[in-house]
This record gives sequence, C-alpha cells and structure tokens, in this order.
Amino acid sequence: MGKQWNRAEQAFMDYTKVMSQYEEAISLMHWDLRTGAPKKGVEGRSDVIATLSQQVHEMATSETMKQYIQTLKGNTDDPIIQKSVEECERNYEQSSKIPSEEYKEYVALQSKSESIWEEAKENNDFELYRPYLEKMVEYNKRFAAYWGYEGHIYNALLDNFEPGVTVDVLDNVFPKVRKALTDLLQKITQSNVEVDPSVLTGHFPKDKQQSFSLEILKRMGYDFDGGRLDETVHPFAIDLNPGDVRVTTKYDEADFRTAVFGTIHEGGHALYEQNVDTELAYTPVASGTSMGIHESQSLFWENFVARSKAFWNNHFDLFLSNAPTSFQHVDFTSFFHAVNEVKPSLIRIEADELTYCLHIMVRYELEKALINSEIEVKDLPELWNDKMEEYLGIRPTTNQEGILQDVHWAGGAFGYFPSYALGYMYAAQLHHAMQQQLDVDALVAQGTFDPIRQWLTNNVHQYGKMKKPLEILNDATGESLNPDYLVHYLTEKYKKIYLYE
Amino acid sequence: MGKQWNRAEQAFMDYTKVMSQYEEAISLMHWDLRTGAPKKGVEGRSDVIATLSQQVHEMATSETMKQYIQTLKGNTDDPIIQKSVEECERNYEQSSKIPSEEYKEYVALQSKSESIWEEAKENNDFELYRPYLEKMVEYNKRFAAYWGYEGHIYNALLDNFEPGVTVDVLDNVFPKVRKALTDLLQKITQSNVEVDPSVLTGHFPKDKQQSFSLEILKRMGYDFDGGRLDETVHPFAIDLNPGDVRVTTKYDEADFRTAVFGTIHEGGHALYEQNVDTELAYTPVASGTSMGIHESQSLFWENFVARSKAFWNNHFDLFLSNAPTSFQHVDFTSFFHAVNEVKPSLIRIEADELTYCLHIMVRYELEKALINSEIEVKDLPELWNDKMEEYLGIRPTTNQEGILQDVHWAGGAFGYFPSYALGYMYAAQLHHAMQQQLDVDALVAQGTFDPIRQWLTNNVHQYGKMKKPLEILNDATGESLNPDYLVHYLTEKYKKIYLYE
Repeated sequence: MGKQWNRAEQAFMDYTKVMSQYEEAISLMHWDLRTGAPKKGVEGRSDVIATLSQQVHEMATSETMKQYIQTLKGNTDDPIIQKSVEECERNYEQSSKIPSEEYKEYVALQSKSESIWEEAKENNDFELYRPYLEKMVEYNKRFAAYWGYEGHIYNALLDNFEPGVTVDVLDNVFPKVRKALTDLLQKITQSNVEVDPSVLTGHFPKDKQQSFSLEILKRMGYDFDGGRLDETVHPFAIDLNPGDVRVTTKYDEADFRTAVFGTIHEGGHALYEQNVDTELAYTPVASGTSMGIHESQSLFWENFVARSKAFWNNHFDLFLSNAPTSFQHVDFTSFFHAVNEVKPSLIRIEADELTYCLHIMVRYELEKALINSEIEVKDLPELWNDKMEEYLGIRPTTNQEGILQDVHWAGGAFGYFPSYALGYMYAAQLHHAMQQQLDVDALVAQGTFDPIRQWLTNNVHQYGKMKKPLEILNDATGESLNPDYLVHYLTEKYKKIYLYE
Repeated sequence: MGKQWNRAEQAFMDYTKVMSQYEEAISLMHWDLRTGAPKKGVEGRSDVIATLSQQVHEMATSETMKQYIQTLKGNTDDPIIQKSVEECERNYEQSSKIPSEEYKEYVALQSKSESIWEEAKENNDFELYRPYLEKMVEYNKRFAAYWGYEGHIYNALLDNFEPGVTVDVLDNVFPKVRKALTDLLQKITQSNVEVDPSVLTGHFPKDKQQSFSLEILKRMGYDFDGGRLDETVHPFAIDLNPGDVRVTTKYDEADFRTAVFGTIHEGGHALYEQNVDTELAYTPVASGTSMGIHESQSLFWENFVARSKAFWNNHFDLFLSNAPTSFQHVDFTSFFHAVNEVKPSLIRIEADELTYCLHIMVRYELEKALINSEIEVKDLPELWNDKMEEYLGIRPTTNQEGILQDVHWAGGAFGYFPSYALGYMYAAQLHHAMQQQLDVDALVAQGTFDPIRQWLTNNVHQYGKMKKPLEILNDATGESLNPDYLVHYLTEKYKKIYLYE
C-alpha cells in the first residue's frame, strides 16, 4: 500500500501479519467446531488448534519479536506501528514473565478444570470442583505477582480484559450503581403494574424467527457480503478477517426472544468488527479494544435500540407478519412491557436489563476478595448465596443455581466479569452522547439505523485497538466513566413501564 | 501409542504430524470457501491459505526433512515410517529439483492462467487463453526434465497423479478399450430400443432430493458422526482428519440426477477416507493412494452400484416416496433405462458411463503429444475436434464446447486425465474380484451394502498410501491392470438395455 515503511517496520508488519493469519485459521476452526463439525473430528481438530496456537505464542515471545520491540518502540512515525508495537510488547511481557513450565501446567489444568466444572454443575457437586477452583485461584495470584501491579493485586488481572480500568475505578462506580439499581428494583417490585411475560411464549417456528432476525440484522447495517448467520448452542460473534465477521444464534421455538435478542446482541458485536478501519487489517490492533467496549456495542443494539418503545413502534408489524396466529391478539403495550419485564432471577444469563449488573457485582466482589486472599474457595457457596440475597433479594437453594453456574472461573478468567457491567455503563454513556447529536428515538422509530451505526463507527468501531477503552469513552462522550447515565436511563425507562411514581 | 520408536523416528513422526495439521487447517479453509464463506472475506482467506501452504512447503523441503530422510530411509523397522519416509522423499525430490524462483513464477502463473481460462471459456476465445496454455506446457516440459523419467517424457507428469503407471501401461490398454467402446457405441446407436431421459426431468424439490441422498449415503455406510453433507457449486469430498470427512453436493430442481448420483459419487470418495486404518492418522501416508484409485471408489458406488438394476429394484420405492407426483407414473423399466442412457455428447462432465472414457482418451493423446513436442498449442482446437469426431462421432462447433471446457490444463495439471479412465478400469476389475467372493447383485438388491463396503475397506481403503495403485489392484484382484473387465461389464450391461444382439 503506498506506505513508506523502513526495513524494520516492514519486517515487523509482515511478521505480525503472519500471526494474524494463523489466528484467522484458528478462529475458523473454532467457528466450525461450534456450528456443526462432526463429533469424531473434534479431538484431532482441537490438537490442530493447539499446534497453531503454540506457533502464535512462540512468535509472540520470540527473540525476533523482542528485537522488533526494542528497535521500533518510540522509534516509528507511523501511529499504527506504534500502537502495534505497544500491543505486542504487552503480550510479550505478559507471556515472558510466566515461567514456561508453569504456563504449560496452567493451560493443561484449564481444560481439565473446565470439564470437571461441567460435571460438577451437572451433578450439583461443588466439592468435586473445589480443588480445581482453588488451583485456578492460586495460579492467578501467582501470575498477578509475576506481572506486577499498582495498588490492588486484582488490577493485574483486570488489565487483561479492560486495560486501564482499575479497582479504584470500579469501586468508585459499582456501589453507586448498586444502590440505585436496588432502590429501583424495590419500586418495581412494589408496582401495581402487571407485566405478563407469557404473552411472548408459545410456538414460533424457527424459519420465521430466522427471517425476522435476518431482516433486523440487515436493517442494523450488518453486511452479509462480509458475514453470515449460523446456528449454534452458545451464540457468539467471531471476526475471521475484516471481510468475514460471522454471527451465530440459537432458536428456541418456545421462546422467540432467545434468537431475536440474541441475534441483535451478536449483531452489535459484529458491527464493531465489520467497521474497524481497513487500514488496521491484519495488524495487532485490528480488532475491538476490550471486552467492555465490545459488550457496550452488543448491549447498545440489544437494549438501547431493540428493547426501546421506538423500536417496537416501528417493528411490531414486521414482528407480527412473521409471528404465528397465537401472537396476533397480543396488544402492543402488553408486548412491549413483557419484553422489558424486570424480575430478579438466579441465573445471570437469563437476567433482565436491570438486574444483570447486580449479578456482576456479586461476582466482582467475590473474585476481588479471592485474589486478595480475603476469602477462601471453600466458603464461596455461602458467600455467593449471601450476596445474592443481599443484592437481588433471592437466595439460591442449590450450588447449581449459585456458584456453579458460570464457566469463567473454571477456566481461570478472573477479572473478566466486570467487563459486562462496564459494557452497560459505556453503552448508556455513549447513548447519552449520541442523543446530543442525533434524535436517536426518532431514528429508531423510523427504522433508520444508518446514522446510529455511523455514529458508533466514527466514535468507537473504526479505532480498533488504536485507543484504550477509557480513551474511547472520553473522546466519544467528553467525560470519563460516569455511571449516572445508566442509572438515569434505567430509571426513566422503567418509570414509564412500571409507573412507580 | 505404546509404539517403540527411537528418537529419530519419533522426531520425524512429530514433524510430519505438524505438516498434516497445517494441511487440515488449509483443507477446512478450502471447504469453507466452497460452502458459503462471505465474498468479502475470500481474498484475505486465500492469503492465509497461501501462507500456511508456504509453511508446509518449507517444512517439506527443509534441511531438517532432508536429514530425517537420510537417517531413516531403509533404516527403520516400522513399515508406516518406512512408507512415510518414501513419500516425503518423493516430495522432497520433486520440490527441490525445481529452482525455487522458477517454481514461484509457476505458482503465480497458475492462478493467472486459470482466471484467464475462465474468461476465455466464457467468451469462447481460445486466442486469449493460448499464450497461457503455451507457458503451462513449457513449464511442465521443463519440470519433467528436472524430475527425470524413464521412457516417455510424459511419464514424469503421470507419476504425480498415478504413481507407477506409465505411457507403456496406458498404451497397452487404452486402444483396446477405445476400440471396444466405439464398437459398443455403434451397436447402441443402431439399437431400436428407445430410451427417453425426459422421464427423469421435471421439478423435484431440493429438500426431497436431500432426504433421498442422505438416506442412500447412510445405507452406503457413510458415517455422519465423522462427516456432513453441504451444498456447493462444484461438488467434492474432502478429508479434514480421519473423523471428519465431508461431502458436498449441488441440487438442480429440474434434474435430480445431479444431486443423487453426485452425492453417491462423492460418498464413494468419502468412504475411502473414512476407512483408512486409524494407525495411519496424521502420517504422510494417511490418505488415498492416487487419483485413479480414488476415482475407482466413487465410480464403483455411482455406477456399479447406483446405476445397476439391482439397486433400483430395491430403491425405486424409496425414490418414489421422495419424488413429486409427476414421477409417480414413470414405470420401472423406463426409469432404469433413462438412468443408463448412452448418448455421445460434447461435454466430458455430462458424459454417460460408456462414452466418458472416450473423452479421456481424446485428452490423453493430446496432452501426451503436447508434452512430447509432437503437436503445438495453436493446433489444439482442430486436433481436439478431429479426435472427438473420430472417437465419439460428434464434432464441437465452438471451442467452448471443445478445447476450452476443462480447467485442468489451465492449472498445469498434465497427466491428470488418465486417472479418470483408470478409475473406471480399476472399478470394473475390483467389481469382478468382489463378485468372486460376494454375491454383489444380491446384496445390492437387498440394500445390504455393508459387506461390499467392508470388502472395499479390506482390499483398498485401509491401506491409505501404504500401497501404490497397481499394488492395490494386484493384491485385491490377483492380476495387473486388465481392461477386459470394464469392456465386459459395459457390454453385458448395455446388451440388456439396448438389446442390440
């Protein structure tokens, strides 16, 4: 491309391009494993993934990489190369600080631990899982020490998922949000308005759910020449290359919400990856900047757009034209309210827009305390249930519905959960900023999503990893993380539905 | 696996396993590109394939590989390692004899030439294609010289596709077969029996074609836990790993034969790969031994089984139960005859079981003479048309229907075509041998395919590349290549249909 790179710059970009290409092959194998690879091929395919991942890891931690970093760091005029070097340095440091034997043991333990977790969850047997979870906690504490950190030890882990966000940042916002949400929840619980979710259930043929979902995806601006929609068990979006960003969904014929809101959610993730500046393609900064910013994009579309009144004002007819007879008598208000029902529940992934963040706070506080050695794994089930009762007012009666429900810790992903709640806050803050420039509700009500998508591209998508999460947020909204927008948004929304004032 | 390998053996097997794993990733990318990858992702994906292929090529021609070959050749007790070393040596020699600059130019020219061919075919413009074809011929002549050969120069190329088969072998059988087939064709042409293919055409919904095809695949013994059936433009079978061998097909709602016989054909290829001995998995000898033996497997199922009277005696009801109303009045004999119609046509891939080999002989004679500098590219269109007239009694009126129809030469694949005709002969000879041990017709008539599949596994599939094509044939049938079986089979079959005696 007409770029004037010197020899070292060119060599570095060629080297990292090969790494990206290996990752593309790995991603395709993951996509395939989750969308229909025959079961007898899985073991061999997983070994191929391991071999290619090992290759990428070796390239990321090689002497060659070290020299590129030394040569180019602070010594290049190209901002893409500069950020790419920083990204590579970060990976290099993270990987090279852990003794390689220890890392290998950890990787082996990860899969074992995840499969034991699965068994434990199925059998509601926390004791089976406990020793593995204890080891995962120990490894993560040691890794945090190897990596080093400022302030709280948990910062070392958080930084893997949400670079730049610290315990200080979270502890400054989470309690405020928690207080506001629990207050709100109380009002809603006491409201006389009856919201009946049963108007949403009932047989809805898969092909009709699919055509509705496809139409919405198209209207959102998802580019089908650069992607496709497939079926899977646990839906996800995946970027293979800039021209191939796929979404997957799951059809539940007894509840259309799974597929429809799921597809829109994954579509939000996909729009992010489809709209990263093509200049960044096949570089280390080619994809979304963090878990939290990614989640802000999926949640923006799923909640701020697709659960809004404006959206259904426009799309209810389209919905009915795809829905079977049994839905034709549902009136708009009942439908819209049901789509926004608030009800504390035990399972995070089934939570509504309001209580979701409370689930996250339970997990955040527990994992922070675990890593900081304030609590022990053996006490987790009780502590979990206590927190659930405190924040959501309901108490799990089994560990299956409590501590055993999520795979994250089993795989050693400590520091991941906060991203979900950050995603909600980022989304609300971006939504507020967008409203200063666009009449968002009017656009949604017209089904004119392009200016919205374009705003998100201008302010978020295009940058890939060229900006850190809080930098994105600051530049797009003119202020740092402010949880008031989420609280305000939810308060206004539910006031109208539950009429609690 | 409890194997007692010394250090060098283990290192060699580890090294080649990684090569197989790269190839598995590459194969998945090819499968994906041909079954629905979004168009904007194609260019990037093709570059990833190129990068990984380059990696495999480097491993195959590395100093490390050279040393493995030197250390292990004739110096291992494990027959799998011995054959694997031979296979690697063969690749090493082939690759290292071509100057690497020249090979790169060739690879670049290949894609260019194929895309020009496509344009030329579309516009019926041989002159556009001619200079590219001339270059491909020149490269192949030079490569043959680099590689060296005994006897005819064309042997060097033939050996890439059908190791051990030479011009002497072919010239000993092809003229005999040609004579017999042209005689047979004449009798058929003069027959008074009317075969009406129109009973087979008419709208046949895709999903019904699919369920019929899936049922047949299942009955053949294709293992769906180790494979899947997808849709594509140019059907193929592909082995990703021993537990993942996929088939693809194409549905033409106006002609069910495309999907049904196509699926059975690809299913035959897939059965081969699914039944290679698992001991050979991820070694250099893990897959089918040659193009010709592979084709014998697909043709065995497509023709010897699925175009036989015994097959339709059993499956006609199943067919009708899937077929739309318009097919319900077709009587069995008309149907069976139509499925076996013989009619000289200009396009190879549309040819019937009898005339197919004649198309191959046209190509074989021309490419052999081209490589041996007896004829020139500029004269090919006329020579092609003359041969078509001589062997099939029909003459193309455009190059589109003549010399421009196949992509093979555009991609430099000289020496490939004979495999198709060999496949027919191998299949007939295997069929004859099988009949000595099994009542094949009775089994097919009962729809009991397992003993047939098992015989093929015992005699062909299991060996992978542990035996060369003619070794497979000799061991399975007790004699070397004998074209009489094909002639006899076709004579007997068509005698009954066209009653020409």
